[in-house]
Amino acid sequence: MTGLVVTNPPRTDLAVVDALGAFGVATLHEAQGRTGLLGSHLRPIQRGVRVSGNVVTATVAPGDNTMIGVAVEQCREGDLLVVAPTTPCDMGYFGDLLATTLQVRGVRGLVIEAGVRDVADLNDMGFPVWSRAVSAEGCGKGVLGDVNVPISIGGRIVAPGDVVAADDDGVVVVPRAGAAALVTRARAREEKEARARTRYLAGEIALDVNDMRPMLERSGIRYVEHVDWLAESGDAR
Amino acid sequence: MTGLVVTNPPRTDLAVVDALGAFGVATLHEAQGRTGLLGSHLRPIQRGVRVSGNVVTATVAPGDNTMIGVAVEQCREGDLLVVAPTTPCDMGYFGDLLATTLQVRGVRGLVIEAGVRDVADLNDMGFPVWSRAVSAEGCGKGVLGDVNVPISIGGRIVAPGDVVAADDDGVVVVPRAGAAALVTRARAREEKEARARTRYLAGEIALDVNDMRPMLERSGIRYVEHVDWLAESGDAR
Amino acid sequence: MTGLVVTNPPRTDLAVVDALGAFGVATLHEAQGRTGLLGSHLRPIQRGVRVSGNVVTATVAPGDNTMIGVAVEQCREGDLLVVAPTTPCDMGYFGDLLATTLQVRGVRGLVIEAGVRDVADLNDMGFPVWSRAVSAEGCGKGVLGDVNVPISIGGRIVAPGDVVAADDDGVVVVPRAGAAALVTRARAREEKEARARTRYLAGEIALDVNDMRPMLERSGIRYVEHVDWLAESGDAR
Amino acid sequence: MTGLVVTNPPRTDLAVVDALGAFGVATLHEAQGRTGLLGSHLRPIQRGVRVSGNVVTATVAPGDNTMIGVAVEQCREGDLLVVAPTTPCDMGYFGDLLATTLQVRGVRGLVIEAGVRDVADLNDMGFPVWSRAVSAEGCGKGVLGDVNVPISIGGRIVAPGDVVAADDDGVVVVPRAGAAALVTRARAREEKEARARTRYLAGEIALDVNDMRPMLERSGIRYVEHVDWLAESGDAR
Amino acid sequence: MTGLVVTNPPRTDLAVVDALGAFGVATLHEAQGRTGLLGSHLRPIQRGVRVSGNVVTATVAPGDNTMIGVAVEQCREGDLLVVAPTTPCDMGYFGDLLATTLQVRGVRGLVIEAGVRDVADLNDMGFPVWSRAVSAEGCGKGVLGDVNVPISIGGRIVAPGDVVAADDDGVVVVPRAGAAALVTRARAREEKEARARTRYLAGEIALDVNDMRPMLERSGIRYVEHVDWLAESGDAR
Amino acid sequence: MTGLVVTNPPRTDLAVVDALGAFGVATLHEAQGRTGLLGSHLRPIQRGVRVSGNVVTATVAPGDNTMIGVAVEQCREGDLLVVAPTTPCDMGYFGDLLATTLQVRGVRGLVIEAGVRDVADLNDMGFPVWSRAVSAEGCGKGVLGDVNVPISIGGRIVAPGDVVAADDDGVVVVPRAGAAALVTRARAREEKEARARTRYLAGEIALDVNDMRPMLERSGIRYVEHVDWLAESGDAR
Repeated sequence: MTGLVVTNPPRTDLAVVDALGAFGVATLHEAQGRTGLLGSHLRPIQRGVRVSGNVVTATVAPGDNTMIGVAVEQCREGDLLVVAPTTPCDMGYFGDLLATTLQVRGVRGLVIEAGVRDVADLNDMGFPVWSRAVSAEGCGKGVLGDVNVPISIGGRIVAPGDVVAADDDGVVVVPRAGAAALVTRARAREEKEARARTRYLAGEIALDVNDMRPMLERSGIRYVEHVDWLAESGDAR
Repeated sequence: MTGLVVTNPPRTDLAVVDALGAFGVATLHEAQGRTGLLGSHLRPIQRGVRVSGNVVTATVAPGDNTMIGVAVEQCREGDLLVVAPTTPCDMGYFGDLLATTLQVRGVRGLVIEAGVRDVADLNDMGFPVWSRAVSAEGCGKGVLGDVNVPISIGGRIVAPGDVVAADDDGVVVVPRAGAAALVTRARAREEKEARARTRYLAGEIALDVNDMRPMLERSGIRYVEHVDWLAESGDAR
Repeated sequence: MTGLVVTNPPRTDLAVVDALGAFGVATLHEAQGRTGLLGSHLRPIQRGVRVSGNVVTATVAPGDNTMIGVAVEQCREGDLLVVAPTTPCDMGYFGDLLATTLQVRGVRGLVIEAGVRDVADLNDMGFPVWSRAVSAEGCGKGVLGDVNVPISIGGRIVAPGDVVAADDDGVVVVPRAGAAALVTRARAREEKEARARTRYLAGEIALDVNDMRPMLERSGIRYVEHVDWLAESGDAR
Repeated sequence: MTGLVVTNPPRTDLAVVDALGAFGVATLHEAQGRTGLLGSHLRPIQRGVRVSGNVVTATVAPGDNTMIGVAVEQCREGDLLVVAPTTPCDMGYFGDLLATTLQVRGVRGLVIEAGVRDVADLNDMGFPVWSRAVSAEGCGKGVLGDVNVPISIGGRIVAPGDVVAADDDGVVVVPRAGAAALVTRARAREEKEARARTRYLAGEIALDVNDMRPMLERSGIRYVEHVDWLAESGDAR
Repeated sequence: MTGLVVTNPPRTDLAVVDALGAFGVATLHEAQGRTGLLGSHLRPIQRGVRVSGNVVTATVAPGDNTMIGVAVEQCREGDLLVVAPTTPCDMGYFGDLLATTLQVRGVRGLVIEAGVRDVADLNDMGFPVWSRAVSAEGCGKGVLGDVNVPISIGGRIVAPGDVVAADDDGVVVVPRAGAAALVTRARAREEKEARARTRYLAGEIALDVNDMRPMLERSGIRYVEHVDWLAESGDAR
Repeated sequence: MTGLVVTNPPRTDLAVVDALGAFGVATLHEAQGRTGLLGSHLRPIQRGVRVSGNVVTATVAPGDNTMIGVAVEQCREGDLLVVAPTTPCDMGYFGDLLATTLQVRGVRGLVIEAGVRDVADLNDMGFPVWSRAVSAEGCGKGVLGDVNVPISIGGRIVAPGDVVAADDDGVVVVPRAGAAALVTRARAREEKEARARTRYLAGEIALDVNDMRPMLERSGIRYVEHVDWLAESGDAR
């Protein structure tokens, strides 16, 4: 199947993509029933950035970034490119030139299960990238992969036209089918958290705010004064 | 023993805790006979911060942060929460809401052998955290661990009422029994380093400042001009 | 061979070292035929710094930094110290005092296949360091290694008098014999990239700028509309 | 979507599954265009075993193996269970009791992106397992995942009814749609290898058997006698 | 505290140690409330061995095995030596000569959070070892650690006189105070597992044997025929 | 320099190579002043094998094993092939066909800083291999590396014509210049160990056999009865 480029996959409505981009990744993950995170090994090149976009996928061979070039042509305004090597490889698949071509097309960022380079330039350009490595080691050309087929990163499946959102906490994928409904759930969660924060700031704690004490009792929690615990465990010596 | 919460452990005098907090972690580690570091895998979420506090410990089950909520109630002004999962797990056990409840109580920071999230918010709040991962992946509730029993991180044992100090170099634990005495030794070391720095700035080098040449001689150090070394090793070709 | 200190190795002309330092590491690596990178595990303590220098090497025993002290004496203006432990070890071999002695001698930075500490101070001093870990854990003294013999890091061989250049993308070694010629090739590459960047900014893409379409054709690339691909793969269910 | 159990997915014809099981994993991977391997981190508990089966998938929460129990009920003769945790976790999700229930139902083995235990018993029983860890650390019960939805391991997507084959070299997934055709291609490849082996045993080498010399010439290969190379590189010193 | 050798710590009754040694590590871990495992990174040098012993602890400096020699003298019949380096180090701290001195004294095995060597000889001698690495790289002498102070491995605390049991599944520590009681609980668990095994062999599954269906219902498990699920998820495309 | 094949490098006398092969890797490493080990990550595919050979080196591109084919032609009776990728890559670079061509030529084994496959066949053939991974993932052809230039693995430099010896403990490189002299030193060490073993078997311990007690005294070792230590540390609570 190598060398397959799927063109014009359906995308998520940009209004929905943008609405999702207003929430943090942790919030989206929670609102989605704690699913969709791509793994804590993907770290942002820039701190303090939050983006969302329509997924275009590409797979690349080890040490060969040909298919990123091919994927560029399939990208449009509001997209976000997601790249995975067919075998683990931390080489630098992406740098400031490819970032330039994406930025010109209105692509919002890159998520890559591999390495990137020219990170100082990427910072200066303001092109957001999440990667698992930084490496100056460049790639060759000539081996094909696929564009816009479903891929997987960190045990999660990412399909073209899904939404990916990313911030300092990581990267989350939202399947296209559930994207619109997630906006509502994320908003509800954020409002619930805001109410909790008010109570926490007033000095209440989660055991009471979330009514956790009955559960703790049922699970057999046991409070022991330190002096009594010392006596208990001292007998063991 | 799961579900045990030890209350009111003796703590180190806050004046001692604060005095220790004035030194860097490397200095405390050296002054303590090169012991007590919790491992180079624990990294600060914020750069440039230095804290010290009285240890409150919590153990947590994989993917379940119930006991952090329980531990909050055992924390008081000047404490620092130290959390370890019972099995390796990099999920996001801690975020801005728990940080809020700790900050309101005067807790000085968190050290966690796991992941945290909401790191942009933690930065904005100024709540210091050292962790081994950042992950948006949230936890469930319902499985118990223990609070304020001795735990271990990176091969070091951390007990409630010990002092933990942390900065950009890492995290060090100071047993309560030795905390007061360590202040004196750390100060002595810092003064010794200041004297050495003056000599280094004047161009002297450690071989002389620390009188290392006799040891080097005894160990058989051998200086060879490059041209002579080339001739020696060239014979081998 | 432990305890060998090779003195006065030939160095690369400082004008060449400085000329190389004007390029990014990724550019030097490409211009050198994609060779010489020391591995993506070496990360800068400071962001946004670019240095180059004449290599002085040192090997160190696990947990013992004696030979860094010995190497300092062999360093001169324009050098850059490269240190490798004889067995993997992430302890803190280097801190602000050693940095002071190097800075006073005009040494431009440190590359170390191990840990460093006092990183806040190193930042304040402006002494550039690339390391594979940060650790407050200090070293002992008394076990010898070698100074100015060829060593290897990340599968690359680094010899005294070679040039090492480093920036946010990593660290590259340039053998002394090829250093002068590399300046020309790096400049040519940078000019070629500048021309490409102009075309990318105008909306062209790499497939055309680099004339990649014939190669893609030969390799069997196949473009399929999403609806057609769905039909194809749907038959499989 | 947590808690979803998809029942009676179409499976690959058992005759095809068995035909694929006659080939080594490396052969299947090559015959499939070098795709489908689940990653070199999955290692066999038993050496020297080769199996193939129809995939039943399960996802499990960290530290909770409830869904393996649920998946057992969905398994039938000729199946092979493939399990992935929703977040990285090396605990022991599977032991001799679960192996017994699977073996009784005619299930051929387990592939799990996590840990297993009772490995001495698994050996004695002859129930084949590929895992990324061995750990005695047992799991709790009570958190749901999914059964028979597509999952991913090592960057590859595994769907129910696909074929998985495994041996000492690793684990490969063969999509159901292509399974029958792959038997033919694998057989062709094996025959080709047999012919090559005969020539190699007679002393020929791959450069000639595979006619690689023209490609090497075009790529610029250069043969230099050692004495001449020494002279060349010696000039650099 | 470096250089401290605690002599004659109280040990667990050898009859209890031997009784615990009759159970597998997974069983002991479960019977102990799922606590005490030293981490899945500790692997046996020999397969198919099961041992238990009274703990003698030693800490060692990086690259220095002096304290193993010191610990030997503190060992007696029925002991098992547990060694941890003060900083992560995979060098070969232990080989056939040290194994000989321990075997002569009736020591039952070694657990070490580091590397060992002479593994072919250790196999031939029948001296059981669990380690996190195999390395021929030998250690120096001259840096002190401690003997018979509490240490920690994999986040668990191991004290002298505790019981350690080990088999192919890993290593578990049983605190001295709870050792005798654990024999009874382990036996009960083994009997319960034997009863379950009988039912599994007769074709029952865990959902029924452990009465898990009500819990699954409460948690919202949902069974969907594959054709119906396809229709559902197909709408999303 | 890519594509360079150095032919007919001087080799070490086969009588010396064979003499070295009679010793274990740990012994050679010690006799060589604790140098030359290639890192504990290289593990044998077969257990219980010991080999030595003249080094032929090859570097390979990520995912491309062209140069192993080229290196075969440079190999002769008594050689041992040592392969390193130019960037970390765990793919399966080597299998039973390449092993056949090497075995036919009298090559004694393979050491590779990457993955291999067909491991069941390699076992059956009795062709010894040390690798850092097992992976069925095959390589492409067409990218050049070098043959018979010095390479490095695990921080050690390996040159053509050096001797490499390998067994269950790992892999050691012996520079050609020192190979003959090392035979004598290894024999002396083995005899010394045999004498020590006799004393250990008679019940003596290393503290006496190696006269370590004065050093321990000087370093400040302190023996404390457990009851006294308890009292000391108890005061701290």
